[in-house]
Amino acid sequence: MKKIVTLLTDFGGHDHYVAAVKGVLLSMNPSLTIVDISHEISPQNIREAGFILAAACRYFPEGTLHLAVVDPGVGGERQGLAAATERHLFVGPDNGLFDWIFAVDPPHQVVVLENPDYQLPQVSATFHGRDIFAPAAGHLSLGLPLEKLGPAINYRMHFPGRLVLRDQDKLQGEIIHVDRFGNLISNIEIPSVEIKGRLQDLEVSLATEQVLTGPGTYEEAPPLRPFALIGSSGLLEVSVRNGSAHTLTGCGVGTPVLVRRQK
Amino acid sequence: MKKIVTLLTDFGGHDHYVAAVKGVLLSMNPSLTIVDISHEISPQNIREAGFILAAACRYFPEGTLHLAVVDPGVGGERQGLAAATERHLFVGPDNGLFDWIFAVDPPHQVVVLENPDYQLPQVSATFHGRDIFAPAAGHLSLGLPLEKLGPAINYRMHFPGRLVLRDQDKLQGEIIHVDRFGNLISNIEIPSVEIKGRLQDLEVSLATEQVLTGPGTYEEAPPLRPFALIGSSGLLEVSVRNGSAHTLTGCGVGTPVLVRRQK
Amino acid sequence: MKKIVTLLTDFGGHDHYVAAVKGVLLSMNPSLTIVDISHEISPQNIREAGFILAAACRYFPEGTLHLAVVDPGVGGERQGLAAATERHLFVGPDNGLFDWIFAVDPPHQVVVLENPDYQLPQVSATFHGRDIFAPAAGHLSLGLPLEKLGPAINYRMHFPGRLVLRDQDKLQGEIIHVDRFGNLISNIEIPSVEIKGRLQDLEVSLATEQVLTGPGTYEEAPPLRPFALIGSSGLLEVSVRNGSAHTLTGCGVGTPVLVRRQK
Repeated sequence: MKKIVTLLTDFGGHDHYVAAVKGVLLSMNPSLTIVDISHEISPQNIREAGFILAAACRYFPEGTLHLAVVDPGVGGERQGLAAATERHLFVGPDNGLFDWIFAVDPPHQVVVLENPDYQLPQVSATFHGRDIFAPAAGHLSLGLPLEKLGPAINYRMHFPGRLVLRDQDKLQGEIIHVDRFGNLISNIEIPSVEIKGRLQDLEVSLATEQVLTGPGTYEEAPPLRPFALIGSSGLLEVSVRNGSAHTLTGCGVGTPVLVRRQK
Repeated sequence: MKKIVTLLTDFGGHDHYVAAVKGVLLSMNPSLTIVDISHEISPQNIREAGFILAAACRYFPEGTLHLAVVDPGVGGERQGLAAATERHLFVGPDNGLFDWIFAVDPPHQVVVLENPDYQLPQVSATFHGRDIFAPAAGHLSLGLPLEKLGPAINYRMHFPGRLVLRDQDKLQGEIIHVDRFGNLISNIEIPSVEIKGRLQDLEVSLATEQVLTGPGTYEEAPPLRPFALIGSSGLLEVSVRNGSAHTLTGCGVGTPVLVRRQK
Repeated sequence: MKKIVTLLTDFGGHDHYVAAVKGVLLSMNPSLTIVDISHEISPQNIREAGFILAAACRYFPEGTLHLAVVDPGVGGERQGLAAATERHLFVGPDNGLFDWIFAVDPPHQVVVLENPDYQLPQVSATFHGRDIFAPAAGHLSLGLPLEKLGPAINYRMHFPGRLVLRDQDKLQGEIIHVDRFGNLISNIEIPSVEIKGRLQDLEVSLATEQVLTGPGTYEEAPPLRPFALIGSSGLLEVSVRNGSAHTLTGCGVGTPVLVRRQK
């Protein structure tokens, strides 16, 4: 069966870990199309992985399976899960990695990966991506019903996630990701219908400094001035035209962002 | 329809941008074979991307579509284009990225990506790779005629490109790429038939220093001495045996290279 | 013919080299599934490549072809080879890259890549990955018998490889790889059946310091204390819970590791 499986990990590109996962998947289902979302998540950074997964996965076709492994608690108490939402399947550790995507695309079925029949014969203490999650994904890609993998649970959120600006006067969020170009991406979602793609009715502060809100594209912005815009993920971002907002402002993950309507 | 699409961007491997482009492509045409040329182009470095594209794309089979996005002018005045050459299709911004390849493989048809029917319903100001270029590539991969995407234009070059040493006495070029091994690759092409794979009839200077021209392979070169050879792309390169010419000489992108025939 | 080809190189992700190899492969056999093991091997580090190949390749299905190119001697005396083991095919330079895997999975047929009919028409002095190894792999993937590529040889080992702890009192090995998480992976294999997944009967020293041997998972380990465990490749590793053993100890590739049974 032709099926798409995406991979998101913090394994990096140097080691053999990603390839071992792909080998297990292809040994079970050689016709899979495997797509890397990213393997460069900062080591053990669950929240960053959750943002990247949510930002990428919505563009994949119906029936895609997303295998995500950022797993500092491997071998300990945390459980593994498999989940089905309206359009997609998800497999990975139950540690908050799926909070963001499940907030916007809630699962109708979640199971714990307990059935040893669908794991590798020998399960290591430190690499469940290869030994438990990849086999579960491989079986699901071949049509195994979710409930065979283990007992059903209700998904519980682990972290506060994305914030949505609606009619409030004021919203306090934070920078959750710095991209390769130095753009500072916040967890504040601004429905673009409401404000027509621009932020000029809003006041936006990054740490203690107010930033420009007029420009809607990089070319409209003045040089060397941080400005806020609605980025390509629908989230408020702070950017610098032809430069890095991260370098220019010194701000990064965790920097507070305040949005309020202008009087 | 089974089709190969290559991707070349400056998006890096950390963010969700590459995966979003792949998701759009696979949503339109799930049987595509997608091949990454590189996503590690230095941010917004159009000339570097143009060199890498030209060096890689010639090895792909007839009918391959190359989607290339290094796009500092996104959301501004620059246009998007799709082009057909004798063997391949190309999609990306019209900012010089295709200069090098079109100099050696000229397009017989070029159109501007203006037709909104072949774009995502909502086009962001900052991510045309996902919203305009990927949908155009997806439609072309399914057999859409190029002219449906928008009006025809004539391609105009943006940058000076590669230089070819023929019968001249002397040619002044520059280093255009430093590879992972520290090899300094110039924009000077030396037809290998003419000089039988070695450079000993030539004088080659890097910045103000003359470099060795005898060795034809790394093993023939003395240690710790920069030497010029015809590299695997047919361009004059400066290398150091088991070392980095970049580190040893301090030279890099933009360093002038002078070639002249020995008297 | 649907076939899996894996790639392992030190070419990095920035340059056009990996894409050129893939283009050659797909031009010969467009239906190949190509899987990257890694392209981030430290430049010209043959032993590291050999470890990564052996750790990853065992998970791929029967019939997989592994194309590996870490090739400091390109263009010189070293030969290229193709080899068949019980389950897999291998293609690459004969420089020790295959020592580790052939020690555990010995080839029953090895040939030297001498037949120019199965190389690109023009072979460069510096890029045999594209000009010799990729064409050989492409032909093998289409069913060419190994012996067509050149004369048979017996494989000879180049390096000392992995060490196996059996009944000895004492074994001296070394760190051969530092992974992205800072885990220090040694070349000492400890059959897990013998010691039931834990190392508490052993004394393990890293350089001159004895390290903890009790914990079997990261969660069981105390914070900020290096400890030895059997890693996911079956090798003795030194790790730090939620931290980097590499950073904390200052140890890396080449650091001696001593294992002895407790009295």
